[in-house]
Amino acid sequence: MYCLLKCAPLILAVAVCHGWLFGDFVEKQKELDEISLWPLPQKFQSSAVAFKLSPASFQIVHAKQSSAGPSCSILVNAFRRYFEYMFGDLKKHEKSRNKVYDSDLVELQVWITSADPQCDGYPSLQSDESYELSVDKPSAVLKAANVWGALRGLETFSQLVYKDDYGANNINKTEISDFPRFAHRGILLDSSRHFLPLKVILANLEAMAMNKFNVFHWHIVDDPSFPYMSRTFPDLSQKGAYHPFTHVYTPSDVKMVIEFARMRGIRVIPEFDTPGHTQSWGNGIKDLLTPCYSGSSPSGTFGPVNPILNSSYDFMTQFFKEISTVFPDAYIHLGGDEVDFSCWKSNPDIQKFMAQQGFGTDYSKLESFYIQRLLDIVTATKKGYMVWQEVFDNGVKLKDDTVVEVWIGNKMEEELQNVTGAGFTTILSAPWYLDYISYGQDWQRYYKVEPLNFPGTDAQKKLVIGGEACLWGEYVDATNLTPRLWPRASAVAERLWSDKSVTDVGNAYNRLAQHRCRMVRRGIPAEPLFVGHCRQEYMGL
Amino acid sequence: MYCLLKCAPLILAVAVCHGWLFGDFVEKQKELDEISLWPLPQKFQSSAVAFKLSPASFQIVHAKQSSAGPSCSILVNAFRRYFEYMFGDLKKHEKSRNKVYDSDLVELQVWITSADPQCDGYPSLQSDESYELSVDKPSAVLKAANVWGALRGLETFSQLVYKDDYGANNINKTEISDFPRFAHRGILLDSSRHFLPLKVILANLEAMAMNKFNVFHWHIVDDPSFPYMSRTFPDLSQKGAYHPFTHVYTPSDVKMVIEFARMRGIRVIPEFDTPGHTQSWGNGIKDLLTPCYSGSSPSGTFGPVNPILNSSYDFMTQFFKEISTVFPDAYIHLGGDEVDFSCWKSNPDIQKFMAQQGFGTDYSKLESFYIQRLLDIVTATKKGYMVWQEVFDNGVKLKDDTVVEVWIGNKMEEELQNVTGAGFTTILSAPWYLDYISYGQDWQRYYKVEPLNFPGTDAQKKLVIGGEACLWGEYVDATNLTPRLWPRASAVAERLWSDKSVTDVGNAYNRLAQHRCRMVRRGIPAEPLFVGHCRQEYMGL
Repeated sequence: MYCLLKCAPLILAVAVCHGWLFGDFVEKQKELDEISLWPLPQKFQSSAVAFKLSPASFQIVHAKQSSAGPSCSILVNAFRRYFEYMFGDLKKHEKSRNKVYDSDLVELQVWITSADPQCDGYPSLQSDESYELSVDKPSAVLKAANVWGALRGLETFSQLVYKDDYGANNINKTEISDFPRFAHRGILLDSSRHFLPLKVILANLEAMAMNKFNVFHWHIVDDPSFPYMSRTFPDLSQKGAYHPFTHVYTPSDVKMVIEFARMRGIRVIPEFDTPGHTQSWGNGIKDLLTPCYSGSSPSGTFGPVNPILNSSYDFMTQFFKEISTVFPDAYIHLGGDEVDFSCWKSNPDIQKFMAQQGFGTDYSKLESFYIQRLLDIVTATKKGYMVWQEVFDNGVKLKDDTVVEVWIGNKMEEELQNVTGAGFTTILSAPWYLDYISYGQDWQRYYKVEPLNFPGTDAQKKLVIGGEACLWGEYVDATNLTPRLWPRASAVAERLWSDKSVTDVGNAYNRLAQHRCRMVRRGIPAEPLFVGHCRQEYMGL
Repeated sequence: MYCLLKCAPLILAVAVCHGWLFGDFVEKQKELDEISLWPLPQKFQSSAVAFKLSPASFQIVHAKQSSAGPSCSILVNAFRRYFEYMFGDLKKHEKSRNKVYDSDLVELQVWITSADPQCDGYPSLQSDESYELSVDKPSAVLKAANVWGALRGLETFSQLVYKDDYGANNINKTEISDFPRFAHRGILLDSSRHFLPLKVILANLEAMAMNKFNVFHWHIVDDPSFPYMSRTFPDLSQKGAYHPFTHVYTPSDVKMVIEFARMRGIRVIPEFDTPGHTQSWGNGIKDLLTPCYSGSSPSGTFGPVNPILNSSYDFMTQFFKEISTVFPDAYIHLGGDEVDFSCWKSNPDIQKFMAQQGFGTDYSKLESFYIQRLLDIVTATKKGYMVWQEVFDNGVKLKDDTVVEVWIGNKMEEELQNVTGAGFTTILSAPWYLDYISYGQDWQRYYKVEPLNFPGTDAQKKLVIGGEACLWGEYVDATNLTPRLWPRASAVAERLWSDKSVTDVGNAYNRLAQHRCRMVRRGIPAEPLFVGHCRQEYMGL
């Protein structure tokens, strides 16, 4: 079906398996070696026949038959972006050459085949990201049902272009048919433990697109700070952010993140985690958090959201109404993890409520009581929701389309079995907590994970729609986040995009080492895998 | 003698211990909190009496009595540098104010007391880095025997300046008498496993000065690449660097590093490690490395420097003659670590030589034979040398002024006891291998090390002249080196500068968190210690 890499050490040598004709293999080796696709496409054929691309005349154009045209800003922006990745700044290469040589590739035609190219839409869980790419002279053709597949194909095309010994741009004759193995391929960033300037978030969205990630799970608020500026409740950030002006995301900032992500086929799923992880919420909203008691009097500290007051639910109703309009994605992440019961236990009003409800001393019942009402509130906004695994574990009644995120490393297989056994859609992040750094090539550990390696039926396996690499914010901020995330997250990217059989770590090393140099060349300070060098080292700082 | 921080949670609250008078303590708390000296000075008194500094009129000047003047470029450059750190770009603050208010600090007078200020010299192991700083109106006075102490005092002065609630620059009445606990306080960077662009090295020299480090141990070449461009043997980098033009340090680059370091009171000690760690040398110098054998014929691979050929010693003589002139420091690091004997063992010529010399099968004798001759060669250049501990362990005869670097973590105390027991000067790097990253606040582990905590006499303890934080290059390059080094190396900086009794981790956390924000403000992407924020986040990427 597709050519496994095991048949030859060089990625382009896969052509051998298909018996394509090509000549001087040894001499070409160096050039071929330069091409390192990441993540590896599903079906891939290439030959050593190389075409030349002249920045002065090469064009990325809408195919005549395409349903998209110059008004499709997602494509127009992507054409510019990939042209710059391939050839550098446009201005330096004013069109100046009309003669076309026999060995030239003169254009890439992008052909959107469905009636609605989705130029003005947002990517979704259902988006079709598949594409077909044919590189042959005089034109290469990239075919996709809509813009989302075209974006992935443009990335692949840009990865195929390499410089020969003379510095000339080359691309080999290639046929690719590609699609993602999993529909949800996410990165979690945490902007609460450290505030992440907009610039950092945008740079990482760029890097995500280079790795075909399609979900930005924005863990935007948490205990330490509340940087999301709410129109409905401005006091949340005014009193809950590290600083009310410099360390907040304004409505305009949020819009920019969403639009920047949309242009790259990336969904933005915000997480507003409750009832725990909400210390910073309490600064701006009176009575939202549970007062903790020391003996018979309030201690002055606060616990999770107070689940026994109607005002808490009134607040959540208004708050999530705003969130549901600000974020266009069909899903909101509602958190629900790590609720500490000690404060609830200390509070006499909570104790009374527990007795009234017949919860006994099982505080997970109180947690479920809260979550249940929250889910109803969010359901009324017509949004779907994602939750951390505890919400499922505690037996909360969930809508059929709920996405349960499995994050606890211990007994991960059992949890996947249980969640999918109960018929829920699942994403996996447990093996990919990238904040846990260690000495050496830990990317290999992330790479070797097989997400479907748990006991279950085929139907259960189908419920695992993807995974997320999580970089929690305790130890990262603008100074070190980007190199710590890349290329370690790239290992997860290939696991979630490429075929299950793509597991050769040695081959992955070679491609990934070059892919990280490509990211560096494109301005992303992706750290090295091991000893070695890039032709162009990072020149930021 | 000096006021320990334990007496109060705030650093400036030490004033309490001395009974200085000051007023509204509680109201001043926030301001006081802003000041975080790092590393902590030896003797320190401060009060809450604050003076204001106006960038429009404040000046750093040579004291009338000073032996240094406007021609002293080390000081003139330092004045500019610290003025910019404190007040930002000079151009924005054209002098425009003549009126002096009663609460103003109008100038810092820098008074070099010795006849020779050493303006044109290089720092050395013997340099006097002590200084006295008195901040009182209308002038502050910084007194030091020579420029090296003045540089340290300027850093301290700049750390004392803080902004009040109105954004105005303040400094509190302060008396400091300071000197380093250890004379050798180094950072090792490795430019062979990854090439480090000049910009990265210079940025880290800047950060070193902010932390009062005074030795850049430049592990410039090693197995993977030879980026040092030698005038005598250009083939070394031509054939041994990752790239002969883009990944090399030209003579001009090396000069710049040395001069940039000199301006900051930092010695540059290059390491040219032999006989092992020399694979990259072999590309440019014929017959330098030992041919390894597979059975009775050469395998095509090479081992350590060939110790049985006169040509090896002829090469070393010429090579180190060049090195001794290029690098002004009195010391060269000659390496000598981790020699792998397997290749020597395989080679019949080596075997024959071993028999002739009566070495039996003890290859450490052969290693010592080589090192002994090398040391004689380097001694002839009038340089002193540093070596890794194996050279001592193997019983090589060393000059009295040899500095032995203890790097093996296992049995470190025993090694310190042995090396100092034999009368040799020692530096310690074993507990400070910063390349070994782990999750969490590992800076605390580095901070808690007590270098003199080994069995030995007072005379032995005196032989430990300092230590080095080592960031080996397997996993770092321009993309991630700086945030990985800082502020983790700052922990080592305080251990090596401040008094032995400065060990309160909680107090260190508070000061270091602010010190790292100061580094960020000065353009160094120093990573966070833990959850929190800086007033100005890093705005690079």
